[in-house]
Amino acid sequence: MRILIQRAAVVARPEEGVIPAADVVVEGKHFAGVFGPGEAQGEFDRVIEGEGKLLVPGFVNAHTHLAMTLFRGFAEDLTLRDWLEKKIWPAERKLTGEVVYWFSLLGLVEMIRTGTTAFADMYFFMEEVGRAVEEAGLRALLSYGIIAPTPDRIDPELKKAEAFAREWNGAADGRIRCALSPHAPYTCGPEVWREAVALAKELRVPIHTHLAETKREVDEHRERHGKSPVQWLEELGVFAVPVLAAHCVWVDEKDIDILAAHNVSVAHCPSSNLKLASGIAPAWAMVRGGVNLAIGTDGAASNNTLDMVREMRLAAILAKARAEDPRAMPAPEALSSATQRGAQALGWGKDLGAIAEGYVADCVLFDLGAVHFVPGHDPLADLVYTACGADVEMVMVGGEILMEGRELRTLDEEEVVARCRDLARKFR
Amino acid sequence: MRILIQRAAVVARPEEGVIPAADVVVEGKHFAGVFGPGEAQGEFDRVIEGEGKLLVPGFVNAHTHLAMTLFRGFAEDLTLRDWLEKKIWPAERKLTGEVVYWFSLLGLVEMIRTGTTAFADMYFFMEEVGRAVEEAGLRALLSYGIIAPTPDRIDPELKKAEAFAREWNGAADGRIRCALSPHAPYTCGPEVWREAVALAKELRVPIHTHLAETKREVDEHRERHGKSPVQWLEELGVFAVPVLAAHCVWVDEKDIDILAAHNVSVAHCPSSNLKLASGIAPAWAMVRGGVNLAIGTDGAASNNTLDMVREMRLAAILAKARAEDPRAMPAPEALSSATQRGAQALGWGKDLGAIAEGYVADCVLFDLGAVHFVPGHDPLADLVYTACGADVEMVMVGGEILMEGRELRTLDEEEVVARCRDLARKFR
Repeated sequence: MRILIQRAAVVARPEEGVIPAADVVVEGKHFAGVFGPGEAQGEFDRVIEGEGKLLVPGFVNAHTHLAMTLFRGFAEDLTLRDWLEKKIWPAERKLTGEVVYWFSLLGLVEMIRTGTTAFADMYFFMEEVGRAVEEAGLRALLSYGIIAPTPDRIDPELKKAEAFAREWNGAADGRIRCALSPHAPYTCGPEVWREAVALAKELRVPIHTHLAETKREVDEHRERHGKSPVQWLEELGVFAVPVLAAHCVWVDEKDIDILAAHNVSVAHCPSSNLKLASGIAPAWAMVRGGVNLAIGTDGAASNNTLDMVREMRLAAILAKARAEDPRAMPAPEALSSATQRGAQALGWGKDLGAIAEGYVADCVLFDLGAVHFVPGHDPLADLVYTACGADVEMVMVGGEILMEGRELRTLDEEEVVARCRDLARKFR
Repeated sequence: MRILIQRAAVVARPEEGVIPAADVVVEGKHFAGVFGPGEAQGEFDRVIEGEGKLLVPGFVNAHTHLAMTLFRGFAEDLTLRDWLEKKIWPAERKLTGEVVYWFSLLGLVEMIRTGTTAFADMYFFMEEVGRAVEEAGLRALLSYGIIAPTPDRIDPELKKAEAFAREWNGAADGRIRCALSPHAPYTCGPEVWREAVALAKELRVPIHTHLAETKREVDEHRERHGKSPVQWLEELGVFAVPVLAAHCVWVDEKDIDILAAHNVSVAHCPSSNLKLASGIAPAWAMVRGGVNLAIGTDGAASNNTLDMVREMRLAAILAKARAEDPRAMPAPEALSSATQRGAQALGWGKDLGAIAEGYVADCVLFDLGAVHFVPGHDPLADLVYTACGADVEMVMVGGEILMEGRELRTLDEEEVVARCRDLARKFR
């Protein structure tokens, strides 16, 4: 299969700005090259018109809990404790594989519609999530969330996580990879972490966890252990394997140095951190400190969407206020965090995240027809500060078209919506 | 003209939540009532189907500079000083009436598309803005921005502002009202403020200004005058007339008490405050302190859109982090600030901002068909935390339909876009 996307404006790599018009060739799963308009040679099975459109690398949602679309609008405006203890946790105990499967599909529809091509998901009933991802056509780093507050939970939880990772790592023709996910330093003790690291080394998979999300959690950790959660994980040897750490709201300079020194990737989740009143992560300080800063939406219970275009804009403007500097997190840096740094965070860094020869063909075409793209002085700034998910028109993963002309190609949206509405009624 | 909007979910007043299904009758410029489904009596000239849709009071953008759509993406990621002195001010000196007219229309298209029915605008060439508003059909509080840093500028600036207000107050069949706008305490001395207040009393119009936007501005004011800008305006007697103050990022408890005591309305502009690194206004503290907190986008140069749906969500989640309490600014409060508090801020408080008998028929219909509205546990939370401007399908102001089925009725969008692209090319 050879596809030509012609005459589109193209962001090949965020740091290189926008090419006003180019022809992009896709061969099989990869980009075969970026050419001047009319300069691509040979026959094409498909030609996609790109005039008046902007082609960018696919968005990478570096932290989510997909099936929590079930809980969108379910528990609003509560304290974190009431939210978890009175609403989310009791409801999660009633989850079934069927519910997780359909609400994962719902989340996948939403992600495709807003231009996400890859994501990192940590949840339960992960085989169902895997099935959904296989059908939808996205790329994903999946992991079972290990929560072992008591010693008797350690073995069963680790076994579940291991079984899932052994079965699904490399599935869907390589689109699915697995991670191990001790949920957080405050829900998993040192034994869990040590075993997870040993297993991660054996399976050659990364660790995806929650880290330093709330002030209270970090204060309590320091009180109990005499050090920050970041230092604690470092001393446990966790950073000897690739780690993707969500949130990192309450990290100090020393923590940032540690994260950078060990190439830890951070999934910055600004909407969720604001909505749950967790705080504002020092995103720009992390980027400046050499941390690979990706962006995630977190689950739809605390966002309440899975829209990376919205999340990228928020990350860009919030970083400026947090750093007290309007030059912080300029548009190309925000786009990089939403795309190529996310690819690296998921472990696909070397051949994903750019529109260039040899890279995996994950990309998104924005329709620039909306009035908010006028006058168009700076298309990259327009993409970061102005665009919305509804502007996404075409989505491609590994050369396969998942949406075109805003029509889904791999999923039956009507069926997904109908099944989810039905399941939600029963769930209430 | 009698219009029936049937079977829609309806937010009549934000604090009352969502009526799952109702019939809303519009007679002439006003709502004639909200009835049970099928209970509205009589003949109708138009029936609008509302099933699967959500009808809400129109959004009120309480602070913007409409024609700055010209500068969207024009000056990104700069310090405030470079942004103003090197980019915006030199460019504004080249503005013409023609440019302001067309880029105001562009902003009006964008506002209609995202559900805004009324707004407060302060800029230059205001006759052109007035002409554009007259054609578009929105409701607006318009004012010429008085900048008088030297004594010789005082008289000419006040005269311009007065002439505009005298000519345009009450225009467009009452849809246009005028304000007087000394730009800010740091650009206008006491004489300007005193004269503006006297004139506001004479013309019975409010004052719309910028207040306490940056820390530096407030620090310098305190150094020079020994009091905060809020106290200073109070002592000058400015709050004897209705005042709409944009930003109020750097206000302390005492300032908040003063604003509340004098019924000053605040236009909270979270995107602009973040993007320019001005800070995060204590929005929830102001609401709790009794201030009428409205929401504004500010101009498209610092937002970069005029999308109130996006701004409402940001105001809601940002307030939680700022107050360190996830219960702060719950969904109904955010919606109230984006609608009825905005109506009050613009001086239309008594008969605008609710869907109820006798109120002016300004309303917006959201299409709930998008996948992000599933499963729909809490439609009001979905509206605040999930919806996007592109979900707006129908917009009505004073009983007149400005958009239906996402098609504009009063403006020629293609012509507006073409003219703006052309003018922007010349401007560069």
